[in-house]
Amino acid sequence: MDVSKIKNPSFIKGLSNSELEELSAEIRKFLIETCSITGGHIGANLGVVELTLSLHKHFNSPTDKIIWDVGHQAYIHKILTGRGHEFDSLRQYKGLCGFPKMKESEHDVWEAGHSSTSLSAAMGMAKARDILGNTNHIVPVIGDGALTGGMALEALNHIGHDKTDLTIILNDNEMSIAPNVGAMHNMFGRIRTNHNYNRFKFDAESFITRLPGGDKLRDSADKIKDSLKYLVVDGIFFEELGIKYIGPVDGHNFKELDEAINASKQINKPVLIHVVTKKGKGYKPAEIDTVGTWHGLGPYKLETGEVIKGKAEGPAWSALMSNEVLNYAKQDKRVVAITPAMPVGSKLTKFQQELPEQFFDVGIAEQHAVTMSAGLATQGMKPYVAIYSTFMQRAYDQLLHDVDRQNLGVLFGVDRSGLVGADGETHQGVFDIGFLNQFPNFTIMMPKDGNEAKDMLKTAFETEHGPMAIRYPRGNAPAVEDREEIKVLSIGSWTKEREGNDVTLISYGPTLELITEVADELLKEGINATVVNARFIKPMDVELLHELGEKGIPFITIEESMLTGGLGTQIATFIIENDYENKLRRIGINDEYIEHGDVNLLLEDIGISKANIKSVAKSIIKK
Amino acid sequence: MDVSKIKNPSFIKGLSNSELEELSAEIRKFLIETCSITGGHIGANLGVVELTLSLHKHFNSPTDKIIWDVGHQAYIHKILTGRGHEFDSLRQYKGLCGFPKMKESEHDVWEAGHSSTSLSAAMGMAKARDILGNTNHIVPVIGDGALTGGMALEALNHIGHDKTDLTIILNDNEMSIAPNVGAMHNMFGRIRTNHNYNRFKFDAESFITRLPGGDKLRDSADKIKDSLKYLVVDGIFFEELGIKYIGPVDGHNFKELDEAINASKQINKPVLIHVVTKKGKGYKPAEIDTVGTWHGLGPYKLETGEVIKGKAEGPAWSALMSNEVLNYAKQDKRVVAITPAMPVGSKLTKFQQELPEQFFDVGIAEQHAVTMSAGLATQGMKPYVAIYSTFMQRAYDQLLHDVDRQNLGVLFGVDRSGLVGADGETHQGVFDIGFLNQFPNFTIMMPKDGNEAKDMLKTAFETEHGPMAIRYPRGNAPAVEDREEIKVLSIGSWTKEREGNDVTLISYGPTLELITEVADELLKEGINATVVNARFIKPMDVELLHELGEKGIPFITIEESMLTGGLGTQIATFIIENDYENKLRRIGINDEYIEHGDVNLLLEDIGISKANIKSVAKSIIKK
Repeated sequence: MDVSKIKNPSFIKGLSNSELEELSAEIRKFLIETCSITGGHIGANLGVVELTLSLHKHFNSPTDKIIWDVGHQAYIHKILTGRGHEFDSLRQYKGLCGFPKMKESEHDVWEAGHSSTSLSAAMGMAKARDILGNTNHIVPVIGDGALTGGMALEALNHIGHDKTDLTIILNDNEMSIAPNVGAMHNMFGRIRTNHNYNRFKFDAESFITRLPGGDKLRDSADKIKDSLKYLVVDGIFFEELGIKYIGPVDGHNFKELDEAINASKQINKPVLIHVVTKKGKGYKPAEIDTVGTWHGLGPYKLETGEVIKGKAEGPAWSALMSNEVLNYAKQDKRVVAITPAMPVGSKLTKFQQELPEQFFDVGIAEQHAVTMSAGLATQGMKPYVAIYSTFMQRAYDQLLHDVDRQNLGVLFGVDRSGLVGADGETHQGVFDIGFLNQFPNFTIMMPKDGNEAKDMLKTAFETEHGPMAIRYPRGNAPAVEDREEIKVLSIGSWTKEREGNDVTLISYGPTLELITEVADELLKEGINATVVNARFIKPMDVELLHELGEKGIPFITIEESMLTGGLGTQIATFIIENDYENKLRRIGINDEYIEHGDVNLLLEDIGISKANIKSVAKSIIKK
Repeated sequence: MDVSKIKNPSFIKGLSNSELEELSAEIRKFLIETCSITGGHIGANLGVVELTLSLHKHFNSPTDKIIWDVGHQAYIHKILTGRGHEFDSLRQYKGLCGFPKMKESEHDVWEAGHSSTSLSAAMGMAKARDILGNTNHIVPVIGDGALTGGMALEALNHIGHDKTDLTIILNDNEMSIAPNVGAMHNMFGRIRTNHNYNRFKFDAESFITRLPGGDKLRDSADKIKDSLKYLVVDGIFFEELGIKYIGPVDGHNFKELDEAINASKQINKPVLIHVVTKKGKGYKPAEIDTVGTWHGLGPYKLETGEVIKGKAEGPAWSALMSNEVLNYAKQDKRVVAITPAMPVGSKLTKFQQELPEQFFDVGIAEQHAVTMSAGLATQGMKPYVAIYSTFMQRAYDQLLHDVDRQNLGVLFGVDRSGLVGADGETHQGVFDIGFLNQFPNFTIMMPKDGNEAKDMLKTAFETEHGPMAIRYPRGNAPAVEDREEIKVLSIGSWTKEREGNDVTLISYGPTLELITEVADELLKEGINATVVNARFIKPMDVELLHELGEKGIPFITIEESMLTGGLGTQIATFIIENDYENKLRRIGINDEYIEHGDVNLLLEDIGISKANIKSVAKSIIKK
């Protein structure tokens, strides 16, 4: 069948398991082909083809609520709910979102992009159902990686205590983004490899037989089932929390899935079905991935799985940062690197291989990553936390209460700062400046290129300081020649890239390149701009600001970030409270969420384009 | 002995257990007496007298790191480390802090105020120790309530996986702040009441005897120890996570504590000692508390434990809000209340008693509380989350990613907004405006009195809306007469409390009372002020701002909050981007942490005083 023509999932209920298997193969083919052009989270989706079909067979979406944790594994769900025909627009500007999206379909009952939210959301939906007197099923689908996130564990604790009727699907694919770490992961491994279990009922008999002298006990096996059940049922961790455990189940076997889901429906309490799946199932290049390359990626060659690289200018920002940190760590064992489950994304695998003792992948656990780093810093260590801007949000209070308030020397490499493109709304790194700006002790930097990044790292590793953040965007740094001399920067010092008396353009990071080009073009029209590199977003260069304030030339700030709480806002208060009379315009994100799409198109939308900056410059000069 | 004369804990090592018992009694007497005057977290501290002595006996602080989770139970630690003589200044302005404080003592190796940070901090310190080649002990002390916080569970998962040498003390006092909830708490209860365990070694023999036909197995008991250990060792939850479990131990029995700590020292892996203590031990009024009144409180009468009430003007803000929400909930079952472990502090016990089905105390789990509320809201419910401003920080990403981004109608009662006084730095509610202001869909309100609070609640419960926050401070509302008519407010509408042409004073919440008095006094000096009640901090009243902007009268904003990200900052950008020429001064907290002490003294320090506001007004008018 042409899976792109599927309108809704009702037809699945009539299919036999062999027909479902056929459909699975067709869906896989469709996914592998379309994603080779659009890119996407292909690995995770290939792993849940049968599971998704089975869920839509046994539950009635959207009355029953299927909640996709993280959400990047909902492609099959999107196909089954009538969106297959839009897959050529997947993750493109104005196209289909790579995550569940309520406005796309009534079947998307919960949106996510960050992990570990599904159990709490499910608990809310279940409580609503019970209070309103409804009887629908609530089915959160959570990966083994996401289950180690703190809020998922908070939710488990509440669910088990409350005994709320929920059907939790644990999608155990042995890796989340990178291979999982953590004691719970080890536990799942023990369960998977333990052959002493019987899936749905405890086979006391054979167990007892294995005991020394146990053969004498065989006949009374039934009677001791209860007292012995903790011994052999491997889901004891969940049972201890009050959650009925069913599994493990082969997530690519419809019959096993049928049995498990039917069994769960007999229980009006929280149930967890442990489903073992294979990430990348059915596509060799993704199946054999052991590091996480196939978690989320761009277009690839269909036959070989070879990733099609875009034209890169300079080195990848992540690699540039991680390699430089590795150099410091080789010379000083106090330099350690911490990542919350992003060794691949943050390009730290080389560090991990070369200095395993100084490297910590703590799993999806941003809060722990940050506070552990604070603990390291109290002992004179120099922790470097590589963390995506959007995921750093998870550790807001740890940044504030533990790191900043204690004024500890933790360095944050804030990866994927600014707009990230295809992952969209939930992943844009545009809030960090706003919240870090509020923290009294934080220094916030953003380098315009690799040389400046190295200056900043030198500043961080070779001077005494409190908390520091070096922001850098997704993608590649501008191609520049390596500068010979790397220098310690004076904290809070900005530079003038050029000087003019008509207007001052201020930005930081790679946006400097754009505004310098704007200044060039303005000059041709007789407008002479000062271009300021505000490489320290906090603290600001007060001396330079006074100089500019006294000149009274209008300011334009340009930020790939939220306007509220941003640098432009800070400059505005400086100007007005010092009674300067400069005009000021801020260009950036004005109180809205930015969806997925090509970053250049998104930048155009928010006004970070040559044409718009020039137009704002001209209009402000006129005033 | 005079415990206030203790200089350092070294003398403890020479004391016999009976001498330690004597010392415990003296410390209790001292604590009960001093706290009756200063107030404080007396209950928690009375529970850990023996435990603290035992830790300082068996470990060498500060080389060995004793890390107090939450930190409010460190009074005995403070006495033993030479701060007893300062206890009359406890929690007072410029006095001894109620939490660990590095600058007070080298024995305070970690500061906290929020819960669940100790395990992550300990992991960092342990890794630093191992990398630097040291051999000291790391001893986090965490309560059973704090252990349910997500980040503590993230840390456990990492610790168990990594097998790092740590001695975790689980201080199980059966309640954290209010009585604990959660499946883990139930599990601890099962362990405590289960008499089938033998504390330090598994007594397989007697167990086997109880099996049907088990008497035949007695002789081979040793051989099956390993395969059966999960059956009877009650710490299996922790053992499953890779953490050696010892306990439960009577936390008021020095001999048992000796044995457990000595046993733990034989193990070079993570160990958890389950210590059962009694909160309030040794002081009847605190011992018999089952709701949490004695968690943290002000001065009390020594003989009876009767709490000495300050002179209250109006009703307590928390009670006012909770009772009004209860009224709505009685009429509409979609109205539900959620609290993360603060039913007492947020005065929700009446709600809990009257509408238990519509009430959720989820334990110390702010992230889960917020996202569960988001889940409720997706189903048309009207969740009200009562949460302290400072603890809301823990749920930053849930507020942003789950609530605001999905534009869900969750109402937050942001309790303890502004300065909180005695609890100090870690508890000031001064960051919420800054971060909520950045969220595109949030409405932020603060009522000046009880009537306006009721207007706001009516607005929230009787209109369609996205996420909303109603902030209210600690303590009591101004005494005002109940207004007959409670009305739905127009979103973003401010009011002019009075009008003048010399200066505009803008604030929100109870600070309105102060600035109105300032306006009175200025009038006597011939200065005529407009007083604006910016009851909606977001969105701002743009119409009124244009009117004020056009008049060009200088602005002074007054906020019991961080200046960065606050209302004054937002007004500054409005003025400057609209090319208005008003002068502006912001009074509030300027990029620093505010310590503990009487709120009025703290306000004076940050310039929120009549004298300072008048002086700023006069100076800005002159310009």
